[in-house]
Amino acid sequence: MPESFQDVLAELKAIVGDNYVIDSTGDQEAYVVDWRGRYRGHAVAVVKPGSTAEVAAVVRYCVDKRLSIVPQGGNTGMCGAATPDDGAFNVVIRLDRLRRVRDVSPLANTITVEAGCILAEVQAAATAVDRYFPLSLGAEGSCQIGGNISTNAGGTAVLRYGPMRDLVLGLEVVLPDGRIFNGLRALRKDNTGYALKQLFIGAEGTLGIVTAAVLKLFAPPRSSALALLKLQNVEQALQIMQRLRGAVGDRLGSLEIMSRSQIEAIAETVPHVTIPFELTTPWYLIVELTDTLAGIDLNDPLATVLSDAMDAGLAEDAVLASSLAQAKAIWAVRHSVSEGNKRSGYVVSHDSVVPLERQAAFVTNVEARIMAAVPHARVVMHGHIGDGNIHVVALIDRDRCSDPATTADLVAEINEIVDNETAAQGGAISAEHGIGITNRGRLARVADPLDIDLMRGVKQLLDPNGLMNPDKIFANKRAGAA
Amino acid sequence: MPESFQDVLAELKAIVGDNYVIDSTGDQEAYVVDWRGRYRGHAVAVVKPGSTAEVAAVVRYCVDKRLSIVPQGGNTGMCGAATPDDGAFNVVIRLDRLRRVRDVSPLANTITVEAGCILAEVQAAATAVDRYFPLSLGAEGSCQIGGNISTNAGGTAVLRYGPMRDLVLGLEVVLPDGRIFNGLRALRKDNTGYALKQLFIGAEGTLGIVTAAVLKLFAPPRSSALALLKLQNVEQALQIMQRLRGAVGDRLGSLEIMSRSQIEAIAETVPHVTIPFELTTPWYLIVELTDTLAGIDLNDPLATVLSDAMDAGLAEDAVLASSLAQAKAIWAVRHSVSEGNKRSGYVVSHDSVVPLERQAAFVTNVEARIMAAVPHARVVMHGHIGDGNIHVVALIDRDRCSDPATTADLVAEINEIVDNETAAQGGAISAEHGIGITNRGRLARVADPLDIDLMRGVKQLLDPNGLMNPDKIFANKRAGAA
Repeated sequence: MPESFQDVLAELKAIVGDNYVIDSTGDQEAYVVDWRGRYRGHAVAVVKPGSTAEVAAVVRYCVDKRLSIVPQGGNTGMCGAATPDDGAFNVVIRLDRLRRVRDVSPLANTITVEAGCILAEVQAAATAVDRYFPLSLGAEGSCQIGGNISTNAGGTAVLRYGPMRDLVLGLEVVLPDGRIFNGLRALRKDNTGYALKQLFIGAEGTLGIVTAAVLKLFAPPRSSALALLKLQNVEQALQIMQRLRGAVGDRLGSLEIMSRSQIEAIAETVPHVTIPFELTTPWYLIVELTDTLAGIDLNDPLATVLSDAMDAGLAEDAVLASSLAQAKAIWAVRHSVSEGNKRSGYVVSHDSVVPLERQAAFVTNVEARIMAAVPHARVVMHGHIGDGNIHVVALIDRDRCSDPATTADLVAEINEIVDNETAAQGGAISAEHGIGITNRGRLARVADPLDIDLMRGVKQLLDPNGLMNPDKIFANKRAGAA
Repeated sequence: MPESFQDVLAELKAIVGDNYVIDSTGDQEAYVVDWRGRYRGHAVAVVKPGSTAEVAAVVRYCVDKRLSIVPQGGNTGMCGAATPDDGAFNVVIRLDRLRRVRDVSPLANTITVEAGCILAEVQAAATAVDRYFPLSLGAEGSCQIGGNISTNAGGTAVLRYGPMRDLVLGLEVVLPDGRIFNGLRALRKDNTGYALKQLFIGAEGTLGIVTAAVLKLFAPPRSSALALLKLQNVEQALQIMQRLRGAVGDRLGSLEIMSRSQIEAIAETVPHVTIPFELTTPWYLIVELTDTLAGIDLNDPLATVLSDAMDAGLAEDAVLASSLAQAKAIWAVRHSVSEGNKRSGYVVSHDSVVPLERQAAFVTNVEARIMAAVPHARVVMHGHIGDGNIHVVALIDRDRCSDPATTADLVAEINEIVDNETAAQGGAISAEHGIGITNRGRLARVADPLDIDLMRGVKQLLDPNGLMNPDKIFANKRAGAA
C-alpha cells in the first residue's frame, strides 16, 4: 500500500468520475453494513462504475494496489456475502449505474439486462412485452439481478421454473484479473467446451463480478387458482402434492408451507397483515395452480382434489380463494414471514434442503431437538415444500441476546442441531441463501473435504491474489495480503 | 512404462476380474472405432469395472502407470470424444456393468441411475412409475446415461425440458486422480458453494468419469396433437412459433424443421420410411403440442392456429395427424435423417446454434455460400428451430471422397464457411454434439482465447497429469506423457 488513501480515491475518481466514489468520511453506511445489521465492515471507497469497462478498470486498479474487492448488488443478501470486512483496504463495487435493459425479445423469449437492474424492473420489462420472468422473492423491489445471479436466488417460483441458475442463458463477468468473460450469448444450447458460466452463478462474487446477463422469459400465467389448506403435519402436504401432480400435471405453480407458530409470529407483530383464516391446526399450505392460457378453469380441479383429500383425512379444512383480493391476502401472510420474525425476536434462521421424502422427519426431529436443547426458543417454520426446502427458524427473546459471546454460542448450538439432522437426512445446509460469512464455519464443518479442496482450487485458478470478495464461502485470505 | 503389457493386463484383471479386460488381441473393435467409423484408435485394454470403487481403482492404477484413460458410454457420440487415439498406452473404461436403477421416487420426481444405464431403460423405469424422463434422441436405444451427461445431450425435447444439464440433480464422478466426487444428492436446490457438478456435465469425460446420477422426472404428457406444415422459409416457422406460444402457452412440446432436400435424401435412400405427405415447398415443420393431463383437446387449438397462419400467408399447407399412426409416420421421417444422410453420401454435418431471430439469415447465407464454394455439394438441413439449432449438412458424392487429404480440405473449407457465418450471427459452433476430436481445431479457431485459457486452467486443476481423455475438446497432451 505505497500510496495514501487520498491517492487511491483520486485514482478511483479518475476511472469512474468524481461523483461516484464515496470515501469513508462520506455516506458509506448503506454499503458497509448488511441489511439486517449483523455485519459491519469498512471500505476505503465505495465506487459506482458506469460501464463494464469501468468495472474492469476498477478491478485492475485494485489488483495493482492489492486492494480487496467486494462486489455488492442490492445489499439484500441473507448471509453477509456482500459486506466488506473491517480491514483497511476494501473497495466496495456497486453496480447501480449498470441498469439498462439492453434487449428484450418476445420471439426468442430472452431479455438482456445489466447487473444493476432491480429484479422488479426485469419482471416489468418482461410483462411489457407480454412475457414472464418468474424469479420472485421478498426483496424483489430492491435486489439486483447481478446479486440474484451471484447467489443463485430461489424464491417462490422454483417449483415450476427452477432457481436463477435455470433462468440464465448468457453472462458477462469481469474476472478477478480485470479481464472480461464474454459469455453474453442468447443461445438456448451451447456445447462448446466446459460450462464456464456456471462457475459464476452462485459463487457469491468470489470468482468475478457479473456485469450483464441474458435471461430466459416464459409465457405469462394467465389463469390461476389458489387455496389455503389446514394440515396436521408435513406428510399430509406431500401426499396432497402427489394428488395435485396427478390431477393437474405441471399446472402446480407454488406450494408454500407455514407452521402455526410462524403465522402467529406474524399475527402478533405485523399490524398491517390480517390473517384471513382461523388457526386451528399445526400446519398451513398455500397451493397455487397456474396455466399459461387465459380462461382455464383451475378452481374446479383444485376443489376436487382438496375435497377428495379432506375425505381421505389428509386435510382438516381448505379455503379456496374466491377472488384475486382473497388470494392476495393469503400471499400477504407468506410474504410477511421475514418481517414477522425480525419483529418477534433474535432470528436464528436456517435454509436446509433435504430429499422430499425426508422433510417430515427432518422438521419433526429438528424442532424436538431445538426445544430440548433451548427450551426458551420459539421454533417457527416456513418454506418451499415442493423443493425440499423448509426454513427452520428459532426466535430468541432479544433480552437473552444482549451479550454477543453468549448469543454466538447459542446460535452455534442451534446450528449444530440443524446441521446434524440435515446431514442425517441426506441434505445440504443452504438451499437458496448461500454461505457468505454467516455459514462459512458451518460449511467447513459439514462439507466433504474434497468439495472444499476443489472449490479452493477453482478460487486459486481464477483469483490467485485472493482479492475478489475474500473470505466469503470459505476462508482464503493469504498471509501477507491486505 | 516400466512394466510389460502382460503385467498391465494382469493388474487390471486383478481389479475388475478376468472376464472384464479385453486386450488388444481380443474383441476390441467395437470400442476403439467410433460408430460412424471415422476414428480408429488403439488400447492396451478395454476394461469393464463392476462398481464405482472399481472405476476408481482402475483410474488410480492408470495414473500410477501413466496410462491414458478414455471413458466410453454407448459409443454413439457424434464427435469422436469416446474413441482412443492410436497411442500405445490407452485404457478404455466402459461403464456397461454399472447399469442399476438405484432408486425411483415418484413423490420426489427423481430417479437415481448408474452411468451404464441405457437411455431407453431410464425412460422405461420412469414410465413404470407413471413418470416421464424427457431426454429423447436417435440413439436412445443404445446410448448410456453417463455419455448423455458427459456430452450434455440435446435431442427433440429440449424446447420444453432443456438439455441434459437441466435434468441432472446430482452426480457421482471418479476424478482424474481416482478420488470420488460424491455429489449424488437428490436435492432440488443447493447453494453450498461453487457448482462443481456443472463442470462435469458436458466435459466429454476430460475431467472425470461420471458413474451415477440423480435425474429429474416429470409428469408424463397424456394428451398430444401433431401437425406437419409446408413452408416457404424459416422465417415463417418462427412466426408460427410465436402464434403457437400465444395460443397454447407452454403446451408447445416440439418444433422440428426439415428442408425439402433433407426429406428427399431420406425418401431416396431409406426404403422402410414412406413420406406421408407431398413435397411441394422448400421447408417442413413438425409441431407437437402436449399436455400433462389426459383428455385435453389440443387438436382444436392447433387447427385454429394453423388455419389462421395459412390465412395470413404463413404456411402453404398443414396436415393435422388424425391418428397416433399418422403422427408416428411423420416422426419416422424426422428420426431417419441420420440414416438417410449417411446413405446419401459423405456427411459433413454441423451443429451451429444462433439466436432465434438469426436463424433465417443463417441458413440462407450458409446454403448460398456452401453452394458457391462447393457446387457439387448437396445441402440438407434439419433441426430444432425453437432452440436456434438447425443442423446444416453438406452431402458429398462418395466418389469424390476417396482421397483422405482432399476430403479433409473439402471438409475444412465447408466448416470455415459455416463457422464464419455462425460467428457473424452471434452463435456457437456446437449446440448439442460437443467438440470431441472432430471440432477441436474449429473450436481453437473460433473460441475466445480467454475461454480456452480458463478451460485449460480447469483441466490442469483437475487432471494435472493430462491422462483423462487427453486431447479431447482441446489439445492438452504434455510433452513427455504417453
